[in-house]
Amino acid sequence: MTSMSLTIAVDLGGTHIRTASYNSESITPIAHYRTRTNAHEPGVFDRLAQAIGNVWSDDVTSMGVASPGPLDPYTGTILATPNIPEWRNFRLAQKLSERFGVPVHLDNDANMAGFGEWTFGAGKGHHNLVYLTISTGVGGGVICNDALLQGFHGLATELGHMIVDPDGPPCGCGKNGHVESFSSGTAIARYTTEQIQAGQKTSLQLDGDPSSPLRANLTAKQIAEAALAGDSLAISAFARAGYYLGIAVANYLAIFDPSIVIFGGGVSQVGDLLFKPFEESLRKHTFHPHYLDNLVIAKAALGDDVGLLGALAWARFKRSNEMARVE
Amino acid sequence: MTSMSLTIAVDLGGTHIRTASYNSESITPIAHYRTRTNAHEPGVFDRLAQAIGNVWSDDVTSMGVASPGPLDPYTGTILATPNIPEWRNFRLAQKLSERFGVPVHLDNDANMAGFGEWTFGAGKGHHNLVYLTISTGVGGGVICNDALLQGFHGLATELGHMIVDPDGPPCGCGKNGHVESFSSGTAIARYTTEQIQAGQKTSLQLDGDPSSPLRANLTAKQIAEAALAGDSLAISAFARAGYYLGIAVANYLAIFDPSIVIFGGGVSQVGDLLFKPFEESLRKHTFHPHYLDNLVIAKAALGDDVGLLGALAWARFKRSNEMARVE
Repeated sequence: MTSMSLTIAVDLGGTHIRTASYNSESITPIAHYRTRTNAHEPGVFDRLAQAIGNVWSDDVTSMGVASPGPLDPYTGTILATPNIPEWRNFRLAQKLSERFGVPVHLDNDANMAGFGEWTFGAGKGHHNLVYLTISTGVGGGVICNDALLQGFHGLATELGHMIVDPDGPPCGCGKNGHVESFSSGTAIARYTTEQIQAGQKTSLQLDGDPSSPLRANLTAKQIAEAALAGDSLAISAFARAGYYLGIAVANYLAIFDPSIVIFGGGVSQVGDLLFKPFEESLRKHTFHPHYLDNLVIAKAALGDDVGLLGALAWARFKRSNEMARVE
Repeated sequence: MTSMSLTIAVDLGGTHIRTASYNSESITPIAHYRTRTNAHEPGVFDRLAQAIGNVWSDDVTSMGVASPGPLDPYTGTILATPNIPEWRNFRLAQKLSERFGVPVHLDNDANMAGFGEWTFGAGKGHHNLVYLTISTGVGGGVICNDALLQGFHGLATELGHMIVDPDGPPCGCGKNGHVESFSSGTAIARYTTEQIQAGQKTSLQLDGDPSSPLRANLTAKQIAEAALAGDSLAISAFARAGYYLGIAVANYLAIFDPSIVIFGGGVSQVGDLLFKPFEESLRKHTFHPHYLDNLVIAKAALGDDVGLLGALAWARFKRSNEMARVE
C-alpha cells in the first residue's frame, strides 16, 4: 500500500475540458481545473494534457476519462467523434498513459455518467439501472446485474439511437427515426422551426435564415420559456418529445426491466412540460403494468459533475479490480 | 458429495409437456417423456407432475423449468400466460418443490433457450449474446457480461414487444407496433390475409371465414411454400417481416452490442425468404458499421431440445451457485 493514492478524473466535453484529482475516500476534489475544449481547433490533446498537468501530483495512481464517442473502451481508442474532427481512431488512453505513466480508463460520457449515478448518485443500491441524458442528443448508460453494460465492441447502450419509427425525422447521426431525432433538444428545436415555417402561430421568432431549419437558431431553452408562458406550439413540441420518450422508455423497460430510470441532461430540467406527456405515454406503451411496480423514475443527482464523478468511479473500480487480480 | 446427482429438465410448451432426467456430465437424457399439455383444459399441473414423475429417480437433486411467461423467476410464479388460463399468479416452482422435495428453478422459455444456446449450443464462448426465437410470437433471451439478463422483476428481454412503429399493427399482447406484430408467423399470416382480402393476387386461398383475418387460417408455413413457388404476395410478406426484423436487430445491436445473434423458432427455418431482406435492412439500419465487425449471425443449434437443455443448463448453474455458497 502507498501512503496516498490519488485518482484523476477527466470530463472531455464538446465545450469544456474539466480535470480533477481525488484521494481514495472522497468525491470532493483536491484540485480542479476547467478550460475550453476548442474542439474544432488543432491541439485538443495538448490542451487536455495541460489540463491534467494542472491537477497532477506524484501520488496519482490511475486516471478515468469520460469522452464523447463512439469509442472503444477496451483499447481506449476514440473511433470518431463529430466534435473533435482531428481525432479518428485516436488512441487516447494509450497516449495519456505514456505521457503520465499511470493506467488510463476510458468510456463514453453517457456510460460514465450512468456509472457515476450508480456509484455515487441517484442509483446507489440498484442492481439494474437505466440512465438517460437528454440534451442536444440523447445518450444512455446501463447497469445490468451490478455491471456496466459495454458490449462486444464497447458500443452498447447507444440508447438515443434506437429506432422508434423507421419513417421518422433524420437524426444527427444521419439515420432516421431514432428517439434522439424526436426527443433531444435539437429535435425539439427542429420540429418547432418546421412548424413555424409551415405557418403555425407562436410567440417564438426565428432568427438567422428562416428558410433553413438548421440555421434558424431556436434553442430548446427558448422554446421551454415560451411553453411556460403558454405558447401552444412550444407546449406541443415538448409534448411530442415526451410522447416519443415514453415509447423509448417503454422499450427499455421491456428490454432491461430496470428498478430505476434516471434522467440527466439540460433538456430533462424542464420538468412537467416534458415529463407529464412522457409519463402518460410510458403508461400507455409499457408492455405489462408489472414493469412499473416499484419502478423509480428519478432525476440525476450529480449535476454538472456527473462526467467527472463517473470517470472517478470507473477509474477506482478498474483499479480495485486490478489490485484484486494482483493479490 | 452424493454418488450420483441427477437433474430434471421440464419444457412446458403450449402444445407439449416434455420432461427429461440427466446425470451431471451429459446432455443426453437418461429418461425422456412427452405428453400433450391440453393447456386450455383443467389439470395442467397434475399432467405436469405426472410427466415429471415418469422420469423421476431418487438421485434427482434439482429441477429446471422452461415455461411460457410472463412469470417471476425469483419467486417461481407464473403471473399469467395466455395459453394456460387456469394459472394466474400460480406459484409453480413452490408447488413442484413441495411435491418433489428438490429446488425448482424457473424462467420463461425464451430466456431458457438463450441460456441453453449459450451453455451448450451456438453461443458457447460468447460473453454478449442475443437469442431470438421467431415462431407464432417473437421471444428473446440475452447474455450480458456472461450473465443471463433477468431484470428487477424478472421481466427483462421481452424483445418481441419492442415498439418499432407506434402506429403499427396490433400485437397479440394488445399493444401496437411491436416487432412481433410485424415479424412473427402470426403477423406474416395476418398481413397476407389482409392483402388477399384487399384484392391482392396470389396463389394462396383463404379457408374458413374469409371476412375475418383471425379465422382465415393461413399459416406461415403455407405462405413460405407459396413464396418458394414464386408467389409474389407471399414473397413480399416475408420481405416485410425481414425488413422489420432488421430494424429490431439494429436496435438490439445499438442496445446490447452482442458478439452473436442466434435465431431459433419455426419461422427462422425459412432461410433466405426472411434472412435476405433481414440482412439488407440490418445493414441499412445499424447505427454504426463497427457493430457488424466480427458479429456472428447464427442459427440455433439445439433444435427442438432447446427448452429442455436450457432448463437443464439453468438448474445446473443455479445448483453450482448454491454449492459454492454452502462451501
